[in-house]
Amino acid sequence: RSMATSSRKSLTIGLIPADGIGREVIPAARDAIIAVKSELPELKFIDLLAGWETFTRTGTALPRETVQTLKEQCDCALFGSVSSPSRKVAGYSSPIVALRKELDLYANIRPVVSVQGSAVAQGPTVDLIVVRENTECLYVKDENLIQTENGKEARATRLITERASTRIGKIAFELAKARPRKLVTIIHKSNVLSVTDGLFRESVRAVPAVSGGKYDDVTIEEQLVDSAVYRLFREPQIFDVMVAPNLYGDIISDAAAALVGSLGVIPSINAGDDFVMGEPVHGSAPDIAGKGIANPVASIRSAALMLRHLGYTSAADKIDKAVNDTLAPAKLLTPDLRGTASTSQVTDHIMGLIEK
Amino acid sequence: RSMATSSRKSLTIGLIPADGIGREVIPAARDAIIAVKSELPELKFIDLLAGWETFTRTGTALPRETVQTLKEQCDCALFGSVSSPSRKVAGYSSPIVALRKELDLYANIRPVVSVQGSAVAQGPTVDLIVVRENTECLYVKDENLIQTENGKEARATRLITERASTRIGKIAFELAKARPRKLVTIIHKSNVLSVTDGLFRESVRAVPAVSGGKYDDVTIEEQLVDSAVYRLFREPQIFDVMVAPNLYGDIISDAAAALVGSLGVIPSINAGDDFVMGEPVHGSAPDIAGKGIANPVASIRSAALMLRHLGYTSAADKIDKAVNDTLAPAKLLTPDLRGTASTSQVTDHIMGLIEK
Ligand SMILES: CC(C)[C@H](C(=O)O)[C@@H](O)C(=O)O
Ligand SMILES: CC(C)[C@H](C(=O)O)[C@@H](O)C(=O)O
Repeated sequence: RSMATSSRKSLTIGLIPADGIGREVIPAARDAIIAVKSELPELKFIDLLAGWETFTRTGTALPRETVQTLKEQCDCALFGSVSSPSRKVAGYSSPIVALRKELDLYANIRPVVSVQGSAVAQGPTVDLIVVRENTECLYVKDENLIQTENGKEARATRLITERASTRIGKIAFELAKARPRKLVTIIHKSNVLSVTDGLFRESVRAVPAVSGGKYDDVTIEEQLVDSAVYRLFREPQIFDVMVAPNLYGDIISDAAAALVGSLGVIPSINAGDDFVMGEPVHGSAPDIAGKGIANPVASIRSAALMLRHLGYTSAADKIDKAVNDTLAPAKLLTPDLRGTASTSQVTDHIMGLIEK
Repeated sequence: RSMATSSRKSLTIGLIPADGIGREVIPAARDAIIAVKSELPELKFIDLLAGWETFTRTGTALPRETVQTLKEQCDCALFGSVSSPSRKVAGYSSPIVALRKELDLYANIRPVVSVQGSAVAQGPTVDLIVVRENTECLYVKDENLIQTENGKEARATRLITERASTRIGKIAFELAKARPRKLVTIIHKSNVLSVTDGLFRESVRAVPAVSGGKYDDVTIEEQLVDSAVYRLFREPQIFDVMVAPNLYGDIISDAAAALVGSLGVIPSINAGDDFVMGEPVHGSAPDIAGKGIANPVASIRSAALMLRHLGYTSAADKIDKAVNDTLAPAKLLTPDLRGTASTSQVTDHIMGLIEK
């Protein structure tokens, strides 16, 4: 599933570092893209604002200008990470959730692959992709609060549509088809949510039937979300492509990340039919922000995943190889992987390998 | 938090094995209770029906008679496990979810403690309690489906009330107060669900203020649910008592169970203000049902947890000690713990230790 590259004379990339370590790792990802510029059309980067810090300064976490620039001038984007207030703050709303919806980036694709040679990974080798529906479920944020004689009552709506479930199902089958094991596992909780998760499950299961035999060689399994998390820890090798509604996808991708040793190496793209945004799966990590020790790998890999999605396979391959060759000897690792290297040491090493 | 035992001349226990391995492990739990009868008032057991098999025979998964007998004749109950159809079946609804609501068993308490000496546990030692709200969240099962011009759309309501969040918060603080670390971690996703999870979070946080200094020595922390699952894998020792809305509690208790090596050893109680029901955290395990190899430990421990909750401390202690002394040498383990022992071998050994 990659977009046609042929028509592009230049590639304009929006950069939205947002908060915390996002500001340290997005520059590393940009540098990695620049390092493979010989494989790419003319590059243009546009710095864009979003996040908690932007909110505290301007009163909005996602300025209109950011969205407009992305829509009108950019081919793709890289997003860092956001800090969120733990209490409800009037006017504040998560910019990443909003961006996914605004740009209809309906597929959140998160490959989770064990870090070769790392001492941090526990248990067996993991090689799976979480395909997370990215626009609905409880993320529609349709909530209300009422005061009753027994106190406050809050309600949220969980939305699952046939249309969104079908299109995310297609992405999962498409990815599975290209992998050796060709297995799609549908994650749901239809023993409790028989209507909403029932619809998700049925819609994904219905994909092969309407795809003209294209996915006949793909096996379909399913797993209740609680059991999926349990089995992820115990026997991750039973999974290949996991497809899930939004919230379950959020949780299982973090669970899978824990298995490979660090969120700091897990990339993702938020993909729609005509836009793609790379995003490290980790958060803004306020505890280490500003110290120069954040792992740049998740962001650099997100850049590669984004380029691959856009059809720039050789550029993506070069970046991925340099990352893997940096991690494999387990000599230059940031503290999240129990090493002592800095963000810039790891980034420079990756860049050096690309240029060789 | 235990109920007064003084007024009880007899103890009537409803037994609801339900489906699959529930039918093999609930008898083991009953035998364990009988083995400590010298510590208990006169015992009476009543066999009750529920589950998928009951549904296929009678058209209802939870016969009225079962609920009525529990309410009118029983002091407590033991529930096994249910098999659920993966598709929506007209008239079928999960009997365990219904029982929790019917009997207002609002606190699902799940202690997760590493199995001493087991080769199965991965990583560090775990000793925590998941306190799961048991009556609301998406489990209110208020769902609907409409047909639109773009296909089917399904919606579910997620309900969070101040009343239910406060009462589950009290249980968490009460449990934490009695533990050495005295730590409550609130699990939520208020960066997305600021209204519903915001209310849960605020209500739990407000408990100490209205409890007259009772919980002043308890520390409060919080963790987003995705991050909680990640950290559970990576550093479970940071958790002591985790309190969560229903669905997150479902998922994190399975995640914690994976860490100790098997769901087969994790007990729970569903507790209300005047009824308590023990229940192993594992499911009906259709793959091993009928083979006589299910781990009886989760059910036996659930019986002990139920007796402890009812105030029968010495009875509970005796059972727990016999279980721990059976597991510790790691010689008599069922296949889920990578052993070769049968349900009855493990049960008999536990019984033998109690009687010594
Ligand atoms: C920051 C937060 C809103 C976000 C999410 O829940 O989607 C994050 O956890 C993620 O996984 O990208
Ligand atoms: C069987 C199912 C309805 C149940 C739940 O989700 O509560 C189970 O997973 C549990 O944890 O007790």
